[in-house]
Amino acid sequence: MDYQTILNKIQTTLLSVNNTGKVATYIPELESIDPKKFGMHLYCNNAGHYSVGDHQERFSIQSISKVFALTLTLSKLDYNDFFKRVDFEPSGDPFNSLVQLEHENGRPRNPFINAGALVISDLLISHLDKPKEDFLTLIHTITGDKTINFNKKVYASEKKWSYRNASLLNLMKSFDNIHNDLEEVLDFYIYQCAIEMSCKELATAFMIYANRGKTLDNIEIISPEKTKRINAIMQTCGFYDEAGEFSFKVGLPGKSGVGGGIAAIHPGQYAVTVWSPPLNPKGNSELGMLALEKLTTLTGYSIF
Amino acid sequence: MDYQTILNKIQTTLLSVNNTGKVATYIPELESIDPKKFGMHLYCNNAGHYSVGDHQERFSIQSISKVFALTLTLSKLDYNDFFKRVDFEPSGDPFNSLVQLEHENGRPRNPFINAGALVISDLLISHLDKPKEDFLTLIHTITGDKTINFNKKVYASEKKWSYRNASLLNLMKSFDNIHNDLEEVLDFYIYQCAIEMSCKELATAFMIYANRGKTLDNIEIISPEKTKRINAIMQTCGFYDEAGEFSFKVGLPGKSGVGGGIAAIHPGQYAVTVWSPPLNPKGNSELGMLALEKLTTLTGYSIF
Amino acid sequence: MDYQTILNKIQTTLLSVNNTGKVATYIPELESIDPKKFGMHLYCNNAGHYSVGDHQERFSIQSISKVFALTLTLSKLDYNDFFKRVDFEPSGDPFNSLVQLEHENGRPRNPFINAGALVISDLLISHLDKPKEDFLTLIHTITGDKTINFNKKVYASEKKWSYRNASLLNLMKSFDNIHNDLEEVLDFYIYQCAIEMSCKELATAFMIYANRGKTLDNIEIISPEKTKRINAIMQTCGFYDEAGEFSFKVGLPGKSGVGGGIAAIHPGQYAVTVWSPPLNPKGNSELGMLALEKLTTLTGYSIF
Amino acid sequence: MDYQTILNKIQTTLLSVNNTGKVATYIPELESIDPKKFGMHLYCNNAGHYSVGDHQERFSIQSISKVFALTLTLSKLDYNDFFKRVDFEPSGDPFNSLVQLEHENGRPRNPFINAGALVISDLLISHLDKPKEDFLTLIHTITGDKTINFNKKVYASEKKWSYRNASLLNLMKSFDNIHNDLEEVLDFYIYQCAIEMSCKELATAFMIYANRGKTLDNIEIISPEKTKRINAIMQTCGFYDEAGEFSFKVGLPGKSGVGGGIAAIHPGQYAVTVWSPPLNPKGNSELGMLALEKLTTLTGYSIF
Repeated sequence: MDYQTILNKIQTTLLSVNNTGKVATYIPELESIDPKKFGMHLYCNNAGHYSVGDHQERFSIQSISKVFALTLTLSKLDYNDFFKRVDFEPSGDPFNSLVQLEHENGRPRNPFINAGALVISDLLISHLDKPKEDFLTLIHTITGDKTINFNKKVYASEKKWSYRNASLLNLMKSFDNIHNDLEEVLDFYIYQCAIEMSCKELATAFMIYANRGKTLDNIEIISPEKTKRINAIMQTCGFYDEAGEFSFKVGLPGKSGVGGGIAAIHPGQYAVTVWSPPLNPKGNSELGMLALEKLTTLTGYSIF
Repeated sequence: MDYQTILNKIQTTLLSVNNTGKVATYIPELESIDPKKFGMHLYCNNAGHYSVGDHQERFSIQSISKVFALTLTLSKLDYNDFFKRVDFEPSGDPFNSLVQLEHENGRPRNPFINAGALVISDLLISHLDKPKEDFLTLIHTITGDKTINFNKKVYASEKKWSYRNASLLNLMKSFDNIHNDLEEVLDFYIYQCAIEMSCKELATAFMIYANRGKTLDNIEIISPEKTKRINAIMQTCGFYDEAGEFSFKVGLPGKSGVGGGIAAIHPGQYAVTVWSPPLNPKGNSELGMLALEKLTTLTGYSIF
Repeated sequence: MDYQTILNKIQTTLLSVNNTGKVATYIPELESIDPKKFGMHLYCNNAGHYSVGDHQERFSIQSISKVFALTLTLSKLDYNDFFKRVDFEPSGDPFNSLVQLEHENGRPRNPFINAGALVISDLLISHLDKPKEDFLTLIHTITGDKTINFNKKVYASEKKWSYRNASLLNLMKSFDNIHNDLEEVLDFYIYQCAIEMSCKELATAFMIYANRGKTLDNIEIISPEKTKRINAIMQTCGFYDEAGEFSFKVGLPGKSGVGGGIAAIHPGQYAVTVWSPPLNPKGNSELGMLALEKLTTLTGYSIF
Repeated sequence: MDYQTILNKIQTTLLSVNNTGKVATYIPELESIDPKKFGMHLYCNNAGHYSVGDHQERFSIQSISKVFALTLTLSKLDYNDFFKRVDFEPSGDPFNSLVQLEHENGRPRNPFINAGALVISDLLISHLDKPKEDFLTLIHTITGDKTINFNKKVYASEKKWSYRNASLLNLMKSFDNIHNDLEEVLDFYIYQCAIEMSCKELATAFMIYANRGKTLDNIEIISPEKTKRINAIMQTCGFYDEAGEFSFKVGLPGKSGVGGGIAAIHPGQYAVTVWSPPLNPKGNSELGMLALEKLTTLTGYSIF
């Protein structure tokens, strides 16, 4: 499979696409990103790296961090402790909806909606001595790059605009589904979202999901069986209210973020990431979705 | 892979499980089924058939028929005509909910909830001369068995208890998303659900989804690309409000029915079916779910 | 109190108002009504009739008929039999919403939303030999006018566009809250809505609610105690999703219909009706609401 | 009308009723109240005071304070400024629901649900120099009793258990419908709820709503026209999800609180209060509802 030719072809095609997406505007740091940025990186088992465009420029990973947080949590807890606090079902409502959460008594539908990720932050605080350091160490380990860090301006800015997440936290607390200090949980959550990585680094990191839980250096981060389950959750819940469409058109487990990044994997084969800041109305990178659809079309296979 | 040993092991394990499920009671024909029935059948590419228990006894396929109806529709229509009428997103509400349908102006969330299957019946009536015959012919072709037919008692009984579906139809009609006579659409839908097949026949039929759209006799029923997409829909929407759990625990695209059947596939590898009438609270076969979880655990791989 | 001067003043004021309302368009018979029609009629105890404009022209009473249906039902049943089937709480959702009905297991929130009125039609069919005749007889008795009848074209037209109501009926039937044939219940409901009355006739009819249940000829139609309760329901539920606003601005128990009519009463004092076909976005006559607000402002008192 | 005999009769009847209500348990100060407490006080224009039981014992007025807060707000603002921030429609959801609030973009349905009262606290903070003092002064003025104050233990306890209200506040802030510091708004709201008054004092205070906005000393607190509107809001929204039932059975504008108090008025006639701590499942005093139903039955009239 000539992946480099395929990536080049995707880039050429996307250049001619009328991008109707809009960059996220809720904080100035995301709003000011150049909407023309585009990068893509594919890391294939036994076949190395392929890339196009701005694949080495770091961007705000935002909700893609939820996959790393879930990984860290599942490496510490058994399922039963976890299930009591968060479910694994797709959500029919937008990613930050309180409606479903109230109807279901404060137990989030899955770990990739904001409510679920906040519970996971709460769980990590309960189980880790130094949550932020441990979280960052995980990312350093799976990428092999210790320069990765969070962006202080993004972090500070998100703290100012976190009323929705504070509302979710208070609601879950009223159902006794948050056990630590609300400010601390919110702070840790925002920290995770503010981490910056490049397409290349994200693709390297996501190789653990393609490789049954092991890094490229063969360190087991999480068991093969739990890796399989994280992939299943990405498949059904990774794209907010567009999980079905991504599954339908792309057919790979993946996760998107409002920074415009998407990371996806083909189990046993490759990890692929794409970055293009303008988002479609459902909050996923417009060109990113298209790029991955073209990738599975041109390579001829998805997991289905 | 010694599939026969694995199936035997699953059967032995399930015999010792305390089955807390309940058979469907909304029509007497389903209520009177022996809850102890259990069959399982696996058809593997290049490795033939494996089975245990009542795998040759026919049962009411119920909602598993929705996969065949979707297949027939996608073989006739292009996506755009289809998307206008039905979406492909997982649903957070129970399978026959009117709530979501009303909020989304009469366009069902996906083709595997009742509302979506009713729109598909409407589409098939618009595009086929003899909908019932054509539907049955499809099943005869993909199974190679012309004795398969619908159960007249189940059909008659379901007609008496179809108020929920009539409510859905009238609501969608008020949004102009049903184009044919409501009675005719309902009748065709009920007909499909009343078809009876054995585990063996269902596994044979589902081989088209494992084999890129081709039957065992190499007849192309649907294109590889559309097959991939049907599998993606099964993955995200095949188990009502338990799609996430099935994906998490089993990791295969599949579809269940209230008759107690489940059919699933591993693309390129095998189709597997299981039948056990008692249902869990979410409407899926309790032992069926467990059997398939054990299958992917014992075989050591899922699509993830 | 010089009511005639007040009515004249209201009419003059309304002539200069920019009416942004729209006549109902779901059936041609309502759509073709002259939007400039305006009539008002006030019948005061011990002080006779006052009127302006087209107060003697009959129009489709539509949902105002729900008050008469409730009256007939409460004159036949005791409360407990009634409460099991319909509640008396205001509804936060639009008048024909299925959402609330599904969440509350098929028991309508109140008798003035469509679902509630359909249950009342069902109750009347169960308790009356000749429901349509008995219903019309009630109206003849309270108005003293036997020429009042239903409009056959409106009736026929509504039957063609009754999918929403059929959806509600089927949903309630699935919860066993409809006991008679669905077609018959729907037919009777549509018949009631198609009755035509003038402002004058409606004001005369509504005098029973101002006079503790007695007609102007002193015939007791319903007990004083039940009259009080019907008035309370009109106060809290008479204006769909605008009951609060009507209560706030007008302060009288009343009921509106999509034909553009509104009837209201001041207990012990008067009944007043107004007719102007263009409806505001919540489905109530735009000028009708304004006219009654001016009436209680100019007369200086409401029930509060 | 011999009100004293009527009150005595009500008390006697209620003594024999099996009270299935439960006292509020969310804070220890309410939970520890003697459930047998019962008081009732009626103040009639031109006819003086009547009372039974513990009518002079102060209790936590809780949500009854929302009427005083609304009064203070409407005495400062015109309607348009008010309407932009809070609607006046009854709510079909429980009193602290986030669901409706999210669907309606952070604008509460009415001033008597918690969300609405929080917006009112926000408005008062924007318009008053010393909100708490001004609020207490209002109550001192309308009761003529300067010893009335808030309960410090209740206040402190509610602050610890205010996650639901904090969730509502954060949600409304995310829609920009709260303009002051969230902690300050919450603090002021809790302060109001913690005020303690006796049945006698509450009845005296509520005489302003029976007397077109004037105190017993003839001081105009609010205009007759605004008084009328406050009464209309009490009628449609004063009893959470039981406003219809109260209107149906009692037929008076009123307001209840989880401390077990209810205050109601008959415009132009009387104010009446009742206190009995055990609440029915909808959060209103069980015996209180019954007592007022008996009152309007025995006196023979309601506003309807």
